[in-house]
Amino acid sequence: MKKKLSHYDEAGVARMVDVSEKSATKRTAQARGFVRMKAAVLKALPDNPKGNPLEVARIAGIMAAKRTHELIPLCHPLALSHVDVDAKVKKDGIAVEATVSTTSQTGVEMEALTAVSVAALTIYDMTKALDKSITIERIELVEKSGGKSGHYKR
Amino acid sequence: MKKKLSHYDEAGVARMVDVSEKSATKRTAQARGFVRMKAAVLKALPDNPKGNPLEVARIAGIMAAKRTHELIPLCHPLALSHVDVDAKVKKDGIAVEATVSTTSQTGVEMEALTAVSVAALTIYDMTKALDKSITIERIELVEKSGGKSGHYKR
Amino acid sequence: MKKKLSHYDEAGVARMVDVSEKSATKRTAQARGFVRMKAAVLKALPDNPKGNPLEVARIAGIMAAKRTHELIPLCHPLALSHVDVDAKVKKDGIAVEATVSTTSQTGVEMEALTAVSVAALTIYDMTKALDKSITIERIELVEKSGGKSGHYKR
Amino acid sequence: MKKKLSHYDEAGVARMVDVSEKSATKRTAQARGFVRMKAAVLKALPDNPKGNPLEVARIAGIMAAKRTHELIPLCHPLALSHVDVDAKVKKDGIAVEATVSTTSQTGVEMEALTAVSVAALTIYDMTKALDKSITIERIELVEKSGGKSGHYKR
Amino acid sequence: MKKKLSHYDEAGVARMVDVSEKSATKRTAQARGFVRMKAAVLKALPDNPKGNPLEVARIAGIMAAKRTHELIPLCHPLALSHVDVDAKVKKDGIAVEATVSTTSQTGVEMEALTAVSVAALTIYDMTKALDKSITIERIELVEKSGGKSGHYKR
Amino acid sequence: MKKKLSHYDEAGVARMVDVSEKSATKRTAQARGFVRMKAAVLKALPDNPKGNPLEVARIAGIMAAKRTHELIPLCHPLALSHVDVDAKVKKDGIAVEATVSTTSQTGVEMEALTAVSVAALTIYDMTKALDKSITIERIELVEKSGGKSGHYKR
Repeated sequence: MKKKLSHYDEAGVARMVDVSEKSATKRTAQARGFVRMKAAVLKALPDNPKGNPLEVARIAGIMAAKRTHELIPLCHPLALSHVDVDAKVKKDGIAVEATVSTTSQTGVEMEALTAVSVAALTIYDMTKALDKSITIERIELVEKSGGKSGHYKR
Repeated sequence: MKKKLSHYDEAGVARMVDVSEKSATKRTAQARGFVRMKAAVLKALPDNPKGNPLEVARIAGIMAAKRTHELIPLCHPLALSHVDVDAKVKKDGIAVEATVSTTSQTGVEMEALTAVSVAALTIYDMTKALDKSITIERIELVEKSGGKSGHYKR
Repeated sequence: MKKKLSHYDEAGVARMVDVSEKSATKRTAQARGFVRMKAAVLKALPDNPKGNPLEVARIAGIMAAKRTHELIPLCHPLALSHVDVDAKVKKDGIAVEATVSTTSQTGVEMEALTAVSVAALTIYDMTKALDKSITIERIELVEKSGGKSGHYKR
Repeated sequence: MKKKLSHYDEAGVARMVDVSEKSATKRTAQARGFVRMKAAVLKALPDNPKGNPLEVARIAGIMAAKRTHELIPLCHPLALSHVDVDAKVKKDGIAVEATVSTTSQTGVEMEALTAVSVAALTIYDMTKALDKSITIERIELVEKSGGKSGHYKR
Repeated sequence: MKKKLSHYDEAGVARMVDVSEKSATKRTAQARGFVRMKAAVLKALPDNPKGNPLEVARIAGIMAAKRTHELIPLCHPLALSHVDVDAKVKKDGIAVEATVSTTSQTGVEMEALTAVSVAALTIYDMTKALDKSITIERIELVEKSGGKSGHYKR
Repeated sequence: MKKKLSHYDEAGVARMVDVSEKSATKRTAQARGFVRMKAAVLKALPDNPKGNPLEVARIAGIMAAKRTHELIPLCHPLALSHVDVDAKVKKDGIAVEATVSTTSQTGVEMEALTAVSVAALTIYDMTKALDKSITIERIELVEKSGGKSGHYKR
């Protein structure tokens, strides 16, 4: 049994990155996603029975960014200096974008991506009565700056 | 539809203030509120069936201050260096006061006001069986120091 | 020492009410509060730099109702079937009202009062840059129905 | 000003659906999503420096399902009777699937979609050091049963 | 690679128990633990600089019971009908006990054990300045009733 | 009544330590605990019906460390730079150990102890179906460095 269990001990072994020695510098990240829905649902938005999904989504996204470290197991808790979420009606859906800033020892990609995801889920929730085929598409990092790994732009 | 929806996009547009360029300085805020109740309920407090509402309220207020940014959508998450909540029996109710300190890029008024509000709600919860006419009155900022906007005293 | 500590053990002794034997029935509660602010601040609301405080407050209030049991130490966790928060501009401030419903073993006064409090704090947060003298006034229960203690109307 | 503000009061007006009169029946929902990543990153997974992203993602997804109502403003808090999250390595990424069940007054689509989203974000977080071009794709409802609106299958 | 990864998919595979088919019955659980500390620290409790650890611990334990499902990954979220936490000074430490009740599809052992653990941690936190050798000992289930697995008493 | 209530006001009076004047330095803490269980349960772990409790416990412990200030009433909210949780099968149970680091104004003992406690509770939850006599034993601080009170090693 010994061998089996000692191997068993090591299975998985999730690890948080140690950022103790990193310096606290300004870091920003921008992410985006898209909520695809039928044209008819889009047109009906101003009369949506649950209210304006764009505004509720913006707020839900901002609030979710602040709770990223509670949701994503290995994320560090951070003091965020800015969160901005934007939602715009496009031809075949709603484009969501989030920008997050911090001055700390680690970056904020996950905070930006979480803000986009929860904003998109909120739009879904507020329109799902009209269209069950809605999909959330291409949640991705757009740009990132600050920190040792340097600037990234998709 | 285009015009209508583009206007629709802009409705609300809640924004968090960007504090990235502010410096981390010591900031404090003090707030207060009052829970008005009948003299009979006040007199009965030491035998209150749910326990001592003053002590439970103090603890609830301290804990709530730490979660302000989860409750108030556009508040920044902050590392608080001190939270103190005080509850005192007065002639016609209970006076609640909270003081919060931080060394960070933004102030702590909302933390102090949230601590007072939740402490007051807790007192209400623990005494409501005796008096449904209890009201929570005049939650307000008493004093605030630190940060660019300077000292404020009511 | 014995005597002193045995008395010490008993100090406070907060107790949650045991609702195990109560039946799950429909219960509703309605609460209200008022955020007093200067006429100039009220007039400027449609151009408020942080967005529309009424809509953000409604959402913050609804979300807070769902977390009441996390904030108020002796409140029971409940499945809420409805939460509605209303915020209306009046002559000298903003009137906030919340209605909460559940089918469960205990009432929802605290949920309605918490929704009102957090909605009021959110309005404060979004307008405080313009007016530090804003006060939150008279948070109180308006009506309550269901459960053994019966109907209450202020 | 009157007119302008009265219109202003109505902007947005997010509303939670009142489910008080719905009956508590068994309801399930299944959702899925996909995390696209480079073949090289996939191959390296068993030596991933942060641990096994599949297992951490499963756990993060299960935990997120339970907190859906905290994240999505107009979702009802529910007692979930089951949450299952599955993550499988495919040719060009990782397929995530979640199934959620409840016996309550409203459905669990949002819980299943939130579980998938947070599981996908967790996979992203654990592999992002190796590949910044990872995208989260097509988060969507697969199937749903129970409740008045009946069975749905994509 | 195929084989390795398919095995890799299965590593861990945490599963929540499906309680959909269980009936909602009354269930209770009682747990206990002990915080061992030096006699000198015990004697000094009534003058403890952070306040009365027994009362704060009771409240922290009650609040933690309500959040058990957020902390323990595979626990079901439950509506608790009662939580009681008791803390008593003994000869060589403080005895903590918790009793939790629910009417639902699964038991509340974890809620009782979590209440005891957090109450014990709170006592530790409030006395640690005086004694770093404090230990939390023997957290265990005392009794459990209700549900298919029947009555258990240690 | 005056006298009685003024004494009543003072009962308890929980106080958070004011760390405003402390300097932000690197601080670490290490804690441990033990989950005692029957040999038969230990041997069966690789086939445990709920999955690998060691890995789930590690993740639950890391996540709990980040939420310590929500659970322990007088703990300060902190930005943690590292959390590591280890769980190893021993002859008569599972040994849990946690190490936490921060650069801040106060130490992280409570974070390390909370991580150990929640990891131990998670192991209990995942194995309790097999053995109700499991106990969580000797949760204690192992070592602590940084801050004015200096180095401590048990």
